[in-house]
Amino acid sequence: MPVDPAAPIEVTAYRWVPDMARGFVKDMRVRWALEEIGVPYRVRLVGGAGGEKSAEHLADQPFGQVPVLREDGLTLFESGAILIHLGGKDERLLPRDPAARMRAIGWMFAALNSIEPFLQSLLLVRFGGDGKDWQQPAMAGVRPFAEKRLQQLSDVLANREWLEDRFTIGDLVMADVLRAAPEDQLIAAHPNLAAYVQRASSRPAFQAALAAQLADFDPDPVLAKQE
Amino acid sequence: MPVDPAAPIEVTAYRWVPDMARGFVKDMRVRWALEEIGVPYRVRLVGGAGGEKSAEHLADQPFGQVPVLREDGLTLFESGAILIHLGGKDERLLPRDPAARMRAIGWMFAALNSIEPFLQSLLLVRFGGDGKDWQQPAMAGVRPFAEKRLQQLSDVLANREWLEDRFTIGDLVMADVLRAAPEDQLIAAHPNLAAYVQRASSRPAFQAALAAQLADFDPDPVLAKQE
Repeated sequence: MPVDPAAPIEVTAYRWVPDMARGFVKDMRVRWALEEIGVPYRVRLVGGAGGEKSAEHLADQPFGQVPVLREDGLTLFESGAILIHLGGKDERLLPRDPAARMRAIGWMFAALNSIEPFLQSLLLVRFGGDGKDWQQPAMAGVRPFAEKRLQQLSDVLANREWLEDRFTIGDLVMADVLRAAPEDQLIAAHPNLAAYVQRASSRPAFQAALAAQLADFDPDPVLAKQE
Repeated sequence: MPVDPAAPIEVTAYRWVPDMARGFVKDMRVRWALEEIGVPYRVRLVGGAGGEKSAEHLADQPFGQVPVLREDGLTLFESGAILIHLGGKDERLLPRDPAARMRAIGWMFAALNSIEPFLQSLLLVRFGGDGKDWQQPAMAGVRPFAEKRLQQLSDVLANREWLEDRFTIGDLVMADVLRAAPEDQLIAAHPNLAAYVQRASSRPAFQAALAAQLADFDPDPVLAKQE
């Protein structure tokens, strides 16, 4: 188990989030990558989602989010950038061949910028429209944009186990984006996407990362919301 | 002017888009980067936004979008990945120091994943709700998410010319994301963000890239929609 309080790499995670978000906070992506390569890390817990952020945390991460990685003199945020940094340590995350490496990075950007924003729009409409008359018609209005991208991704994965010829950080992020889809039916409509998520989340490294994230949450929401 | 039909680097761009999108198609980011470092490129035009995509284009770019970069044996899509690739060629785009390099890449991810999706949600609600009663209340419902992120970014840039101590691909993408905000008031509400966009888009490389993108569009929408 890579979680080790004496490890030179530090990963920031939330001390508390609502039940529905547990297992889906983005430090999962970094924990999962570190588990894939067996590199130990220590965890620094900060105030929960939606709570007040400490000045120290905002200095590291101007949007008040997690994860932040600290290693030697480097303080880095945005999980995509952290994964490229970790990929440079081990070819199990990112191939050494320059073209294969860039294509894996390309798939990670595709996950983060060509798939996730369309799923997130649905989520923002759901949150922003909570209890409002316009919530359901607005979700129906933006859903087709997400459905189109997922169909295109399903076509890519028609005859493939992974996005390239082996698992990379591109798959790690893509699978993590898909499993967080705000409506189950979006993924279930494409059996090969559902199987892809299942394949990725069956990896021992994913399971270990998930257990580690869940173990770090404070069970008491009142105490835990304090930074 | 880096556009050169004999150049070894090829960039894919749309042959036609509606007037409102001209100057904002994402090959701008790659053209701009190439202009910053004076590297020539040739352009391959493909069918316009919303039109049918050729099998060749879909094989290169599964979402049917632009840009795609071709260079030697490499075919790469997602402008973020292309900019990292180009950044490896020239420290004017991406510093050589490993920590500074990763932080610039981190800002690029922040632009693409922590700012752009919130602006894009507004755009999807606008498009998906065109002519519908729920369009305006739904935009009002998702707008606060974008406003919060822009306030945080404005705080980051309170006393800074660029996101780090010099212009990098992080600024290139951030400025390009901001100038495409779907409502002018979102940026105008923060004079320092408006000044940042102005500073970035005053660079001669931006101006040359903009002129090159505009010059490539076919003026005839009927003919040009054919691939």
